[in-house]
Amino acid sequence: MRISLLALAASLALSTAAVAAEPVDTAAALRDKALVDQTAWTVLDDLTTGIGPRPVGSPAMARAKDWGVDTLKKLGFENIRVEEFAKPSWARGPESASVVAPYPFRLSIIGLGNSVPTPAKGIEAEIVVFKAYADLLAAPAGSLNGKIAVVTQAMTRTQDGQGYGAAGVARRSGPSEAAKRGAVAYLVRSISTSDSRLAHTGGTRYAEGVARIPAAALGVPDADLLERLAARGPVKVKLAMASTTSDKTVAWNISGDIPGSEKPEEVIVIGGHLDSWDVGTGAIDDASGIAITTAAAKLIGDLPRHPRRTIRVVMWGSEETGGSSEAYAKAHKDILGNIITASESDLGADRVYALQLPKGAAATPLGGQLASLLAPLKVIVSREEATFGGSDVEGLQDAGVPVFGLRQDASRYFDLHHSEDDTIDKVDPRQLSQNVAAWASTLYMIADSDIDFRALKDSK
Amino acid sequence: MRISLLALAASLALSTAAVAAEPVDTAAALRDKALVDQTAWTVLDDLTTGIGPRPVGSPAMARAKDWGVDTLKKLGFENIRVEEFAKPSWARGPESASVVAPYPFRLSIIGLGNSVPTPAKGIEAEIVVFKAYADLLAAPAGSLNGKIAVVTQAMTRTQDGQGYGAAGVARRSGPSEAAKRGAVAYLVRSISTSDSRLAHTGGTRYAEGVARIPAAALGVPDADLLERLAARGPVKVKLAMASTTSDKTVAWNISGDIPGSEKPEEVIVIGGHLDSWDVGTGAIDDASGIAITTAAAKLIGDLPRHPRRTIRVVMWGSEETGGSSEAYAKAHKDILGNIITASESDLGADRVYALQLPKGAAATPLGGQLASLLAPLKVIVSREEATFGGSDVEGLQDAGVPVFGLRQDASRYFDLHHSEDDTIDKVDPRQLSQNVAAWASTLYMIADSDIDFRALKDSK
Repeated sequence: MRISLLALAASLALSTAAVAAEPVDTAAALRDKALVDQTAWTVLDDLTTGIGPRPVGSPAMARAKDWGVDTLKKLGFENIRVEEFAKPSWARGPESASVVAPYPFRLSIIGLGNSVPTPAKGIEAEIVVFKAYADLLAAPAGSLNGKIAVVTQAMTRTQDGQGYGAAGVARRSGPSEAAKRGAVAYLVRSISTSDSRLAHTGGTRYAEGVARIPAAALGVPDADLLERLAARGPVKVKLAMASTTSDKTVAWNISGDIPGSEKPEEVIVIGGHLDSWDVGTGAIDDASGIAITTAAAKLIGDLPRHPRRTIRVVMWGSEETGGSSEAYAKAHKDILGNIITASESDLGADRVYALQLPKGAAATPLGGQLASLLAPLKVIVSREEATFGGSDVEGLQDAGVPVFGLRQDASRYFDLHHSEDDTIDKVDPRQLSQNVAAWASTLYMIADSDIDFRALKDSK
Repeated sequence: MRISLLALAASLALSTAAVAAEPVDTAAALRDKALVDQTAWTVLDDLTTGIGPRPVGSPAMARAKDWGVDTLKKLGFENIRVEEFAKPSWARGPESASVVAPYPFRLSIIGLGNSVPTPAKGIEAEIVVFKAYADLLAAPAGSLNGKIAVVTQAMTRTQDGQGYGAAGVARRSGPSEAAKRGAVAYLVRSISTSDSRLAHTGGTRYAEGVARIPAAALGVPDADLLERLAARGPVKVKLAMASTTSDKTVAWNISGDIPGSEKPEEVIVIGGHLDSWDVGTGAIDDASGIAITTAAAKLIGDLPRHPRRTIRVVMWGSEETGGSSEAYAKAHKDILGNIITASESDLGADRVYALQLPKGAAATPLGGQLASLLAPLKVIVSREEATFGGSDVEGLQDAGVPVFGLRQDASRYFDLHHSEDDTIDKVDPRQLSQNVAAWASTLYMIADSDIDFRALKDSK
């Protein structure tokens, strides 16, 4: 009921008063229209149902690129670009793991992205279980000679997703730390808050000068089982993993603009990433981010008068294994000074609860206007400045571009992230719309303002 | 805190007053002791961690048999028996399914128990999607010639589990109904209330005189995807499944008694089933039922004075694909009249919310005593009589044995049932204990009473 009334108000505002309205009135009307607009859902469905999973280097990713161009065109974006860059790729092959002793038991695993394969006949060895990653780090050199290291530390559920940062190091750095101590393979409890047997993948990174050992994530109950079995006596595991890599792969950052009406050369860069892991259909990671930012910008593009500055939606081409951020910063290094601010939507589709602005901006009149605009969506303007805009705008951030962030509730995100369960049915359409509403109204206000965030950031 | 006080009360009652106490006092003390007793958890952990999944005909099932005998012995049961019976078995081989067109996409499937294999090169065909099982039944003969039939009807979540009965027919009878109409293979949305991509298996039954076509369950999001893809145009799927069957397999019903102190020849038969599907570790289906009934009977066995009648725990040897019930009824046909009542625990480990007694029993003084005993556990004595005691006591029920039922909350059960996710971490220890408390106090009262349930049942 509430939504219908808001929609009515929105359509009235847009049709009769938009030209003369204050920016904040236009933004409020946009917000309310976004709550009932179906663009984001359609984009999300098109990308996940029509293309499927989109790992870098796959035929699906090439189809996703064409889809991205078509979608931006169809939604009225201008200045559509496909920016190609070189990117090594990694592709999963057959994988399996089993307990061999004390009795045969098939484990649920998934290889970590970038993992080297095992020899074709697999690796069979006794396991050593570490209930905390810190315990592995404390193990002396040589103590894991010939063993498979298993880290079973659980991830903590948090609203802002910080549990991922704390737990993820065991996935990213664990294989090399285990190898330094003599391990021949590495298994880590899925970096996940779920209790599902579906294992969660994600990239790992090998340290220079350390043996590269095969590494996989265990389903959460499998990690628990190995803990319990190891407490009863020696446990032997067999691991077999195949994978291929290519240095010749290319990827693409695709972008489209809603050109500014007064200062089109000043650009706000937003977006989500088009690539995904090979499991699931990448619905929450990150077709949702693509859908939210594209729909928010499209709604602004539909206005009779565009805001002053240009809004650029970038569909980033290689987030999961990195590369798009650096490629974009490099390709646009001459105009980095024109990028007013940047942000990425890449934490699922659950509701936004806070807006973090660049340093100093919350204290400007814009901060107050945004607080008023976002309050009906139950979004606060945070007292804390944005310190991270998303991994795809890190290249811009490193080059001095101020970032902002619409913080999403990540409580449920890591149940699904990087797993077979990352599918569209996990997206709540109402929360998706709330995201679009928060993005559209925030974006409009930033794009229509003349605040120099860089100057604020560097002041004092 | 509440539990500690209850435990204290229980131990006082058992040590100082048990001999002279009224049966209802002894049962109350048992109930409260059960709330803090660890036997059920230990049994559950031993069976799932120590043995793993236990399909009929597997080496694990043979180890489970020995485990069952050892466990009953260790817990003080008497008259331990291993009753062997012939049972065909079915074993899963490699399975895979993929969308072939409009684009390649690996589907998450699991073959249904008893399914015939596909030819080695698989079956590739266009799919026909039915959103309701009734729609398949309404399809004319020949309308599925050469096609793969897909039924995507969702299961309804219910507290008492009746959604399973309504949805399960699509799994049990769907393959033959599809074959009658010309289909070459059959896919059914998992009979599950979860939104996980993990598919749920379960037995299917081929009708006599109908072609036997391969049949598998789809992960829930995969069924949704096929629905959406089919709405956009033709979809081709490739299915490859292997399996083997053996007519020479044997299975075992294992039982142990807590002998009655006055009428040991009168027997109450309870239990859970030892076999499980090959996926998960069969923690909720049905190591929990084994654990609950064994622990409840063991606590009664520990009393200084046993109740009048004998309590017999049966670890049923072949529930998932049938056979143990019939074997038991046949092996004991001469003493069926001595089986006073029977029941099985086979709906997970979540809390009991209702006790259903045999016809007429709720109106006896026993009904009132049980109502008073179970109220602190939030268990009602239902006004409705028990009509189903569990599939393993169906053979007894068919032969005239009155049944009772401790109804468990099944709201969550079908998220896990018959899937890789049926693991011990899904069991809530407090709910498990509540089960044991409800079973122990109910059992004690029934075993110590002299009510002839058969006479009540046949009265009027």
